Amino acid sequence: MLDNLLKSIVNAVDNLRNQSPIVASLTNFVTMNFVANTQLAVGANAAMVQLPEEATAMASVAKSIYINMGTLLPICKESFPAAAKAAVQNNIPWILDPVAAGMGTDRENIFQSFKHFPPSVIRGNASEIISLAQSWNLNSLNSTPTQNSESIQIKGVGVDSSDTVESAEVAAIALAKFTKGVIAVSGEKDLITDGEKVYRCLGGSFLATRITGAGCSLGGVIASYATITSPLIAALTGTIVYNYCQECAEKYITENSKGTGTFQIEFVDALSLVKGKDLLEIINRTTERTV
Amino acid sequence: MLDNLLKSIVNAVDNLRNQSPIVASLTNFVTMNFVANTQLAVGANAAMVQLPEEATAMASVAKSIYINMGTLLPICKESFPAAAKAAVQNNIPWILDPVAAGMGTDRENIFQSFKHFPPSVIRGNASEIISLAQSWNLNSLNSTPTQNSESIQIKGVGVDSSDTVESAEVAAIALAKFTKGVIAVSGEKDLITDGEKVYRCLGGSFLATRITGAGCSLGGVIASYATITSPLIAALTGTIVYNYCQECAEKYITENSKGTGTFQIEFVDALSLVKGKDLLEIINRTTERTV
Amino acid sequence: MLDNLLKSIVNAVDNLRNQSPIVASLTNFVTMNFVANTQLAVGANAAMVQLPEEATAMASVAKSIYINMGTLLPICKESFPAAAKAAVQNNIPWILDPVAAGMGTDRENIFQSFKHFPPSVIRGNASEIISLAQSWNLNSLNSTPTQNSESIQIKGVGVDSSDTVESAEVAAIALAKFTKGVIAVSGEKDLITDGEKVYRCLGGSFLATRITGAGCSLGGVIASYATITSPLIAALTGTIVYNYCQECAEKYITENSKGTGTFQIEFVDALSLVKGKDLLEIINRTTERTV
Repeated sequence: MLDNLLKSIVNAVDNLRNQSPIVASLTNFVTMNFVANTQLAVGANAAMVQLPEEATAMASVAKSIYINMGTLLPICKESFPAAAKAAVQNNIPWILDPVAAGMGTDRENIFQSFKHFPPSVIRGNASEIISLAQSWNLNSLNSTPTQNSESIQIKGVGVDSSDTVESAEVAAIALAKFTKGVIAVSGEKDLITDGEKVYRCLGGSFLATRITGAGCSLGGVIASYATITSPLIAALTGTIVYNYCQECAEKYITENSKGTGTFQIEFVDALSLVKGKDLLEIINRTTERTV
Repeated sequence: MLDNLLKSIVNAVDNLRNQSPIVASLTNFVTMNFVANTQLAVGANAAMVQLPEEATAMASVAKSIYINMGTLLPICKESFPAAAKAAVQNNIPWILDPVAAGMGTDRENIFQSFKHFPPSVIRGNASEIISLAQSWNLNSLNSTPTQNSESIQIKGVGVDSSDTVESAEVAAIALAKFTKGVIAVSGEKDLITDGEKVYRCLGGSFLATRITGAGCSLGGVIASYATITSPLIAALTGTIVYNYCQECAEKYITENSKGTGTFQIEFVDALSLVKGKDLLEIINRTTERTV
Repeated sequence: MLDNLLKSIVNAVDNLRNQSPIVASLTNFVTMNFVANTQLAVGANAAMVQLPEEATAMASVAKSIYINMGTLLPICKESFPAAAKAAVQNNIPWILDPVAAGMGTDRENIFQSFKHFPPSVIRGNASEIISLAQSWNLNSLNSTPTQNSESIQIKGVGVDSSDTVESAEVAAIALAKFTKGVIAVSGEKDLITDGEKVYRCLGGSFLATRITGAGCSLGGVIASYATITSPLIAALTGTIVYNYCQECAEKYITENSKGTGTFQIEFVDALSLVKGKDLLEIINRTTERTV
């Protein structure tokens, strides 16, 4: 079903390694090291910044920008909006991970600022996607932000991540239409939509939830692929590469009776070794349908 | 000797994996990733925050809070006291790692603020425990803070960590009585006290001192167990689990001629795999006596 | 050719493990954990700080200070100059990694402040060394900072790291003469100079560029050796130890079909296991010539 996209995904994996573009990231302190190492593993060059002037400067040399909302510091109130604005003005893609959407006014204010410089890809878990759509007041499928529409109610659950991927589909489509970008909802069966098609990607490992940074680093890796391909292909490629490499890592630790420490290392190993042609089987597990 | 506690410890290990409670941490930047991964490995869900409003918000959804004093930033002067206060007001346990107690006035002021919202567990090395007791002016065993008492002199040594665990016993007991909580002094033979009993836990590996974060992450893991059991059982369980898993990791690297990089990975593996019943032998190495 | 230095290098490796001196670091958030673990692996004790008063306090207990310019926060504008000043006033060596020299005014202002308290060792890639020399206006080999001299043009390329080690030789020598210290330019064939001799160190692995922190942590390890030997021997020892341990790690992952995750772990393992006598062959690959 994905014959038309298969070649693009395979090429993205191989091309990124040959080009080593700079990806600038403003990302949380918990998983910053892991994000950088995963970006390097798939072939990008990682550059992390914090200050507003440096975020702006990076937008003129980097090929994409990644903003992850975890562990905010006061300076983020300036640097995150500055980075989003600079990305849009420099015509490079920027990727958002709306960590903990719905918690606190500082976080909320930053999210509101992003409405004016919408991201090319938003990657989050179901609860974050639902909460962000609610925060942006996207309460209907027609994508018009409206204060009062209750035709389709989107619930926001903040730090609670118990929502299913399926329950975030309406919010994801609304966000995609509003941003004219791509939304990737991570979970047991990942959902990716550009507002016109909905893709579901099968695979991955439950162990990814037992290490910190699986989601954060996927955002960083999607930002890496977004330097050389479209936001849609980048989101699909990152998600499929992650599912594949998680399966490699789970297989290794199961066969060798290892735990989550080794899982993380084997996962990075797989990211650094994966070639486009390795993905043919897992790509074929993806389904596509029109909204 | 620990027959009465043995079952509680075994249950704590197994129950945490079934319940996956949220633990909020305000912790240092050096080992934040390691703290999160160890908390996930033993079965908790890790959430790291920095801003005061977010620390307060987390206190209403998390089941415990962990505050680690390493690598202070200016914002910590607001967020650390706010988090301690919110934990006490929300009636959830909070766990303190008094890193570098005795260094600098900013650090000292934060410690003073904690006197009003005392932690359920304090875990530190001998020097930190001695220094904190001195800082809080707990110079006698009767636990009454007094400016002039010199009956029992507690020396504070700040960043010097050469004090023995034994030399911190008086300070630990004084702190336990003052906070009505539990003190865990980590070292060659760990000491845990609730002010009435003193437990000594045998085991562990010297290699834990050759990686960063063994102590920080133990505090985070005690905070994890404190979500489902008493502060005393949480401190004992965390300490005993750490000693057991360090021994597993040391055994592996000795047999395979590996170094400290592999030690860290094997240690996380062991944390993610350990079951309550694995601990029967090491629990029996623990001694208990009345103060 | 290095017979005179060989014994000093071998001794530095072994002596550091016996003495475990404290090294204080003000270093970036991406690789802070890795820097600490590599310092611990080679035998030092790692202490990371952020606040100005703590940087100053550390200068009185630590045996060297490491300042790495990645991921600046606002507080760095105070703490970095304070740390450099305190190191010089306390007569302990301090080591600079001029990450992203040439990007932004905050960064530039911090670099200017360092001119008054010059580091004992500067370790960077070719572009950073060239850019720092330009920033400090060291445009001639005679080491006199002059605004207008164009006799030898030093180009500064900021975040671009495509300059060859060779192209940074003039800048490195100028910086060495100006600081009366040692400059280490990392790259395919590392260059180390004290302004009088130029050493070239062969070895290492290209995989070091595919993990984050290889350069940052080398600076931290040079700071570790600088606690017990001269800046020149420290820079040579750190560089040679790194090249050796990278080769060990590359050999392991090639033989075992592993990736960059395992490379990083094996590299730390090698750092924690290496003995002075292991380095005899690789030291002999070093060349020395007079400027």
